Amino acid sequence: MMGTTPKIAAPLDRPAPPSRPEPQEMAKKYLSIRAQSEALCRPLKIEDYGVQSMPDVSPPKWHLAHTTWFFERFLLMNFEKGYEPFDAHFHYLFNSYYKSLGPHQLRSERGLISRPTVEEVYDFRRHVDEHMLGLIQNSPEAAWTAMGFPLELGLHHEQQHQELLLMDIKHILFLNPLQPAYQETPGSHLSSIPREANDKIPTMKWIDFPEGLRTIGSPEEGFAFDNERPSHRVFLEAYRLASRPVTNGEYLEFIRDGGYRTPTLWLSDGWDTVLTQQWEAPLYWKAENGNWRSFTLAGFKPLRASEPVSHLSYYEADAFARWAGRRLPTEAEWEGAAAPEFRESLSSGNFLESNLFHPAPTGPKSSSGRMTQAFGDVWEWTGSAYLPYPRFRPFSGNFGEYNGKFMCSQMVLRGGSCATPKSHLRPGYRNFFQPHCRWQFSGVRLAENL
Amino acid sequence: MMGTTPKIAAPLDRPAPPSRPEPQEMAKKYLSIRAQSEALCRPLKIEDYGVQSMPDVSPPKWHLAHTTWFFERFLLMNFEKGYEPFDAHFHYLFNSYYKSLGPHQLRSERGLISRPTVEEVYDFRRHVDEHMLGLIQNSPEAAWTAMGFPLELGLHHEQQHQELLLMDIKHILFLNPLQPAYQETPGSHLSSIPREANDKIPTMKWIDFPEGLRTIGSPEEGFAFDNERPSHRVFLEAYRLASRPVTNGEYLEFIRDGGYRTPTLWLSDGWDTVLTQQWEAPLYWKAENGNWRSFTLAGFKPLRASEPVSHLSYYEADAFARWAGRRLPTEAEWEGAAAPEFRESLSSGNFLESNLFHPAPTGPKSSSGRMTQAFGDVWEWTGSAYLPYPRFRPFSGNFGEYNGKFMCSQMVLRGGSCATPKSHLRPGYRNFFQPHCRWQFSGVRLAENL
Amino acid sequence: MMGTTPKIAAPLDRPAPPSRPEPQEMAKKYLSIRAQSEALCRPLKIEDYGVQSMPDVSPPKWHLAHTTWFFERFLLMNFEKGYEPFDAHFHYLFNSYYKSLGPHQLRSERGLISRPTVEEVYDFRRHVDEHMLGLIQNSPEAAWTAMGFPLELGLHHEQQHQELLLMDIKHILFLNPLQPAYQETPGSHLSSIPREANDKIPTMKWIDFPEGLRTIGSPEEGFAFDNERPSHRVFLEAYRLASRPVTNGEYLEFIRDGGYRTPTLWLSDGWDTVLTQQWEAPLYWKAENGNWRSFTLAGFKPLRASEPVSHLSYYEADAFARWAGRRLPTEAEWEGAAAPEFRESLSSGNFLESNLFHPAPTGPKSSSGRMTQAFGDVWEWTGSAYLPYPRFRPFSGNFGEYNGKFMCSQMVLRGGSCATPKSHLRPGYRNFFQPHCRWQFSGVRLAENL
Amino acid sequence: MMGTTPKIAAPLDRPAPPSRPEPQEMAKKYLSIRAQSEALCRPLKIEDYGVQSMPDVSPPKWHLAHTTWFFERFLLMNFEKGYEPFDAHFHYLFNSYYKSLGPHQLRSERGLISRPTVEEVYDFRRHVDEHMLGLIQNSPEAAWTAMGFPLELGLHHEQQHQELLLMDIKHILFLNPLQPAYQETPGSHLSSIPREANDKIPTMKWIDFPEGLRTIGSPEEGFAFDNERPSHRVFLEAYRLASRPVTNGEYLEFIRDGGYRTPTLWLSDGWDTVLTQQWEAPLYWKAENGNWRSFTLAGFKPLRASEPVSHLSYYEADAFARWAGRRLPTEAEWEGAAAPEFRESLSSGNFLESNLFHPAPTGPKSSSGRMTQAFGDVWEWTGSAYLPYPRFRPFSGNFGEYNGKFMCSQMVLRGGSCATPKSHLRPGYRNFFQPHCRWQFSGVRLAENL
Repeated sequence: MMGTTPKIAAPLDRPAPPSRPEPQEMAKKYLSIRAQSEALCRPLKIEDYGVQSMPDVSPPKWHLAHTTWFFERFLLMNFEKGYEPFDAHFHYLFNSYYKSLGPHQLRSERGLISRPTVEEVYDFRRHVDEHMLGLIQNSPEAAWTAMGFPLELGLHHEQQHQELLLMDIKHILFLNPLQPAYQETPGSHLSSIPREANDKIPTMKWIDFPEGLRTIGSPEEGFAFDNERPSHRVFLEAYRLASRPVTNGEYLEFIRDGGYRTPTLWLSDGWDTVLTQQWEAPLYWKAENGNWRSFTLAGFKPLRASEPVSHLSYYEADAFARWAGRRLPTEAEWEGAAAPEFRESLSSGNFLESNLFHPAPTGPKSSSGRMTQAFGDVWEWTGSAYLPYPRFRPFSGNFGEYNGKFMCSQMVLRGGSCATPKSHLRPGYRNFFQPHCRWQFSGVRLAENL
Repeated sequence: MMGTTPKIAAPLDRPAPPSRPEPQEMAKKYLSIRAQSEALCRPLKIEDYGVQSMPDVSPPKWHLAHTTWFFERFLLMNFEKGYEPFDAHFHYLFNSYYKSLGPHQLRSERGLISRPTVEEVYDFRRHVDEHMLGLIQNSPEAAWTAMGFPLELGLHHEQQHQELLLMDIKHILFLNPLQPAYQETPGSHLSSIPREANDKIPTMKWIDFPEGLRTIGSPEEGFAFDNERPSHRVFLEAYRLASRPVTNGEYLEFIRDGGYRTPTLWLSDGWDTVLTQQWEAPLYWKAENGNWRSFTLAGFKPLRASEPVSHLSYYEADAFARWAGRRLPTEAEWEGAAAPEFRESLSSGNFLESNLFHPAPTGPKSSSGRMTQAFGDVWEWTGSAYLPYPRFRPFSGNFGEYNGKFMCSQMVLRGGSCATPKSHLRPGYRNFFQPHCRWQFSGVRLAENL
Repeated sequence: MMGTTPKIAAPLDRPAPPSRPEPQEMAKKYLSIRAQSEALCRPLKIEDYGVQSMPDVSPPKWHLAHTTWFFERFLLMNFEKGYEPFDAHFHYLFNSYYKSLGPHQLRSERGLISRPTVEEVYDFRRHVDEHMLGLIQNSPEAAWTAMGFPLELGLHHEQQHQELLLMDIKHILFLNPLQPAYQETPGSHLSSIPREANDKIPTMKWIDFPEGLRTIGSPEEGFAFDNERPSHRVFLEAYRLASRPVTNGEYLEFIRDGGYRTPTLWLSDGWDTVLTQQWEAPLYWKAENGNWRSFTLAGFKPLRASEPVSHLSYYEADAFARWAGRRLPTEAEWEGAAAPEFRESLSSGNFLESNLFHPAPTGPKSSSGRMTQAFGDVWEWTGSAYLPYPRFRPFSGNFGEYNGKFMCSQMVLRGGSCATPKSHLRPGYRNFFQPHCRWQFSGVRLAENL
Repeated sequence: MMGTTPKIAAPLDRPAPPSRPEPQEMAKKYLSIRAQSEALCRPLKIEDYGVQSMPDVSPPKWHLAHTTWFFERFLLMNFEKGYEPFDAHFHYLFNSYYKSLGPHQLRSERGLISRPTVEEVYDFRRHVDEHMLGLIQNSPEAAWTAMGFPLELGLHHEQQHQELLLMDIKHILFLNPLQPAYQETPGSHLSSIPREANDKIPTMKWIDFPEGLRTIGSPEEGFAFDNERPSHRVFLEAYRLASRPVTNGEYLEFIRDGGYRTPTLWLSDGWDTVLTQQWEAPLYWKAENGNWRSFTLAGFKPLRASEPVSHLSYYEADAFARWAGRRLPTEAEWEGAAAPEFRESLSSGNFLESNLFHPAPTGPKSSSGRMTQAFGDVWEWTGSAYLPYPRFRPFSGNFGEYNGKFMCSQMVLRGGSCATPKSHLRPGYRNFFQPHCRWQFSGVRLAENL
């Protein structure tokens, strides 16, 4: 009755990388990314590795094992002849949500996995790394057609989990009643980040964009997630974007003006959340005798007015914008405006590589009429729901579960944060969270109509 | 620091209706709409009026009182000099969600309101109707500038609740273990609705639409909700829409093909819902010895293959479309395609006025290459999130809480249903529900890329 | 391996009443008890009959139907030849918890039963009453051997539900935001209840009881519930009981002394309940500008210091006793002391027949060295868990589910209340509630060691 | 009004131990008990120490720290001059439930305490042990009057937690999806426990006891918990007790006879639990192809028919007894019958010191007409609620919170288990759990009336 259409549309197979990557280069990249995950865990005690402080959080050990499982399951088991899994149980324990691969440990019960131990998980990593290096260095050119994409996906996947690691570690340490610091002093890179001696907040400027058709989305060449593609045209009315993210100082004005006590500023779901969760400030903020402090990966610190506000839910970002008489940008408006700034941000931006793991203060450049801090520092909530782009095709096979099935009841964030690996980001990169989530490094940039 | 912008943007005051409506016309319209609500409740026993069968449902008595409160609160108290409320408590009991008007009875506790009695609520209606008629017939022309809009809004508000009444009554009677019928025989209009003797389902045709800029949204003249405006341009790629909604017969194929047991067909949240709610079919369906029956407002009836499938959640509509190798249309695609069919549907469509309160079977016209049953029968889930249109301005004053604050985590449905009053609908009308909801008359029309 | 004992011990069949009751007497008694239930519902609006204000509460309509079902199910269906149930569905709807009779409506979903209507339930009562009268008046003497016990049980069952009706109606009206009164003026009997002009609280006296073996429990002759039997010996150490229940005035001292803020006064579960339920006073109490009022079946009234405190949970009764340096009596202590007062209380006590439905103030007699207000006014929490007496045998057949299966995690209360029918009570009567419950008329009498 | 009684009864100060204990003896005892706790944790990985597998379970690390806190808080801080706490935060983290000592970490959030690390907790133990040894060895005789009791209490407290450690470790390892064994082979003591080659279950004999007054409860001399005192007289009717606990083999008959599918066998709360928790067998049992296995601290093992059934809830013990046509003994019946067997059990019984950590099979002695396995193996549910004995006085001061505040909604178990330290037990020892709990080593011994 419904015609002859095949029942399930064949998802588009991603094109192989244009040519075989140079094996030594790839091996180096592989090792470097894998090492980064472990470096991030170095300040942890073994005891910290297993805690699941809320259902959204995964224990650090789980992250280390899951990213490794990804390589074992999708690379070694498919491309290394006769490869035997390191431990057959791990396919149950460390499969996150791939229903097409069979049953797996419930997400909310990852904190029960005391075994394998941390040491055994590191052994698992060693084992998989050795085999992966063999695979990368010894695979014939022909193999790369099939292998290139999962390998690149696996590396990006690991980088995603590096940001999750920092988010989750921060939450775990915060809910520990001792609230210990992850690192006593921020990374060495910090000194090179401009800080205003007097913490003056540079004036927010507005940047205008004319109406018209824009093309957004990641281009076909190069790696990108399926959810960023295909690039497509969007009609935008004329709009303006703020030159910089909203700062702690500005957000404090909202609080002091009764923002958290004024229901008409909030989405209905947001207001319910304010009441039931007794929100009075962003996550990690604490008022002591009228002085605000916030919990950072270096422990509790006095709140700095000039830093971009972080750890906002969508509800808070939206309520703030309404209070300010503005709105959130759509993701198309955001991408149209920010994409030109991407290249420069790679040298000047505050990403995971800064080892600061905290948004850097807004600098004087933000008054210059350019869009600043668009990439790095804090993810910026957009007013766009996380939905498929026109003609979206999910990755093929099991990878079809990677992104597409989450396209519901989440909002898009753009631009990366101080916890995002620099090489993981793209101008078209779409992050997404449910509107009540705020344990990610998430802030807000204002928009308005022209 | 953020410039001199006023903190809260002044919402756009809706223009007054172009001229003062003819009072007798308006009085007639008022009485007719008010009478319709009461007519819908006629089959109820007093005992049915008070039941809240789930938190989403309101007791019928509450609907009758709340719509009346709307007129008292926004018309009589503002425009009738010296008007005294019928009962001061009603402002707490029957305010739905207007936080700017003060505290109100919790939504989930509407079933506790045994007093006022049904009779007292009808007295309240009589009282308000008398005063409203006086107001309508005696107001000087000058008053209409301010009064015209709330009056029209109040009437549309009452019509919205007429559909809610039918949805809620159906649910209340279904959860009653006796599952009584609301009306033993469907309305008289039913005989004029074409029914296939042999229940053959007409072949689904596809209708093509070229790429280009479309204008969607309701125009400035005439009544429309704030969420339908402003009309604006959207760029659409070429697409196709099905000539008719998906039928019960087609949905049964999905069930028989294991649709409810195949996680890869579902959004992640949807699959969790299937498991936790143990969904195996649409709401109101029941299999008995291999024969499917569905609960209607005329009681349990054998499932009719040629009727549009109804009472689907977004999750089910989306999973069905994926199984069929298609997708849901966006609301812009839908409006672009369906708007030309609106006028004709007003004479041929199956709306509340049919007194059928159930989708009518798909007729032969649906094979003709025109889009059929777009308006009436079942609301059609779109793949669009319920979000503000560009340059959206909420209604001013208290009415600002009417629509805008729900623009989060809900999906848009289009086209009205067999429970929607005909004169309440517009081509640009946007309905919205959370993705798990399915007690509304909601179905699905397929789309695909060209 | 476990010997030859039969797997299920045959429960003791209750002896038939000593002789056939005089049919006209029994018919009169039947009609009088049945009429009492309906009289209690007379002040209700139809809308009140269906509300279930919390899972513990049943809608009044349900009580009226369930007690009727009891007679139909256990008398008419067993003893009237060819009797056809009034409505076969009622056996699902109005079976409370007899698992041996098959599935039944979930307790927490009794509020969904809008049909049958109130009128139909009264028709059901009429129908069953007619048949019951026929049965009572026309059964041959031989039939009474089997029929006498279920009939008497059915009448006591109906009387139990009369108290439940008052408890539940009070809760339903209280949770209605209008908090209407059930009866504007208390019953006529009220004038005969002594009230202190100046609300002076008579001094509490202590009555001593020597150590020794006591026999408690209801004797074999006459009607009693299985849980009150068999009578048996208990060794008691010497003890003292207060001459009267604790009053509102004394309980206020506990509140003012920080009783609800002092964890060391409370059982651990009790303190958790204080915190999660935010208890600050007994149920139905409300402080307005420092003046306490309490909700009664005659509406909100100023709190009267000389009345026995009511609507206490076990946790509160226990905490109060600890604060007072005393303890709760055991049920054996209580029964040993109170039984001699039973006969007199039948003429002087404040029971349901007073139509006051509220505890009466403590009178001067309470200083006389006798135990006063032991029966009627308020149930008195004991420190005894509700457990089987030695050699307890549940009623036989389906009636085995009547009492025994609730012997877990509940505490015993003794003495009846202002909502208990006089002829329903016995000195050995055991009531029981979970320790957090407080919608029953429950107070406290202090005990201490000698 | 309530007389002149002091508001809070002064709890009885426990008499000091008759004379100063010999310091070297006491130091040896202290070290030996402290070492036992650590020995029990030896098989754990660091990762296991932090898991809280359900709210009732505490992480092993928490047990080690809490028992140490007890000595620091109640001994060192009171009796060592100038003692400074090892870490001031620990008084928040490791206070269990002493509200009189101020706020503490929520019980359900003990799994969040990743810091202090396991090593730091062992350092804490070392530190406190050193100071405790100093205190024990150097305190003047006068100090022992005040110090003797808390010291002895602290040691018994630590022993209680040794059993909890084994219970909790078993649960933690069971909920770990890998379900690792705690110890591969049971302790060396095991070989000396008689095992039937053919697993024959010795016939259950019945032992008769005449009616009369019995004295139960722990005598005043020697250490006992407050809840075991004072010893007092109880009148008992004639009764019989089974010569041994119910075995796995007998419990299997109950399962096969539909025990878990027959609501009339169960208490009402119990049946609800069976349905909501989907119970089909005791905790830790698993049927594989018709063969039952049970999870032990040595991993999954085939179920052995002759072993006492363990890990029963009160609901299951009670339902089994009803099915068997018997009942549970009261705690007075149990104590009266078992006390004479206590001394011998100390040499022959299966306690923690066996290192078996699992009930031993029933031996031929159980047919000899003596009560066997009363002490050790499994705790035996009694039909007695956990309530204060007549004239009960809680320990004084903070220790008043030790036992008394839990006297509500729990049932008494008697006799100790394979996880109870031998020197911790007494004939009058009362253990208690809520009726749904079954992660303790709990079984059942039948009783009946004579």
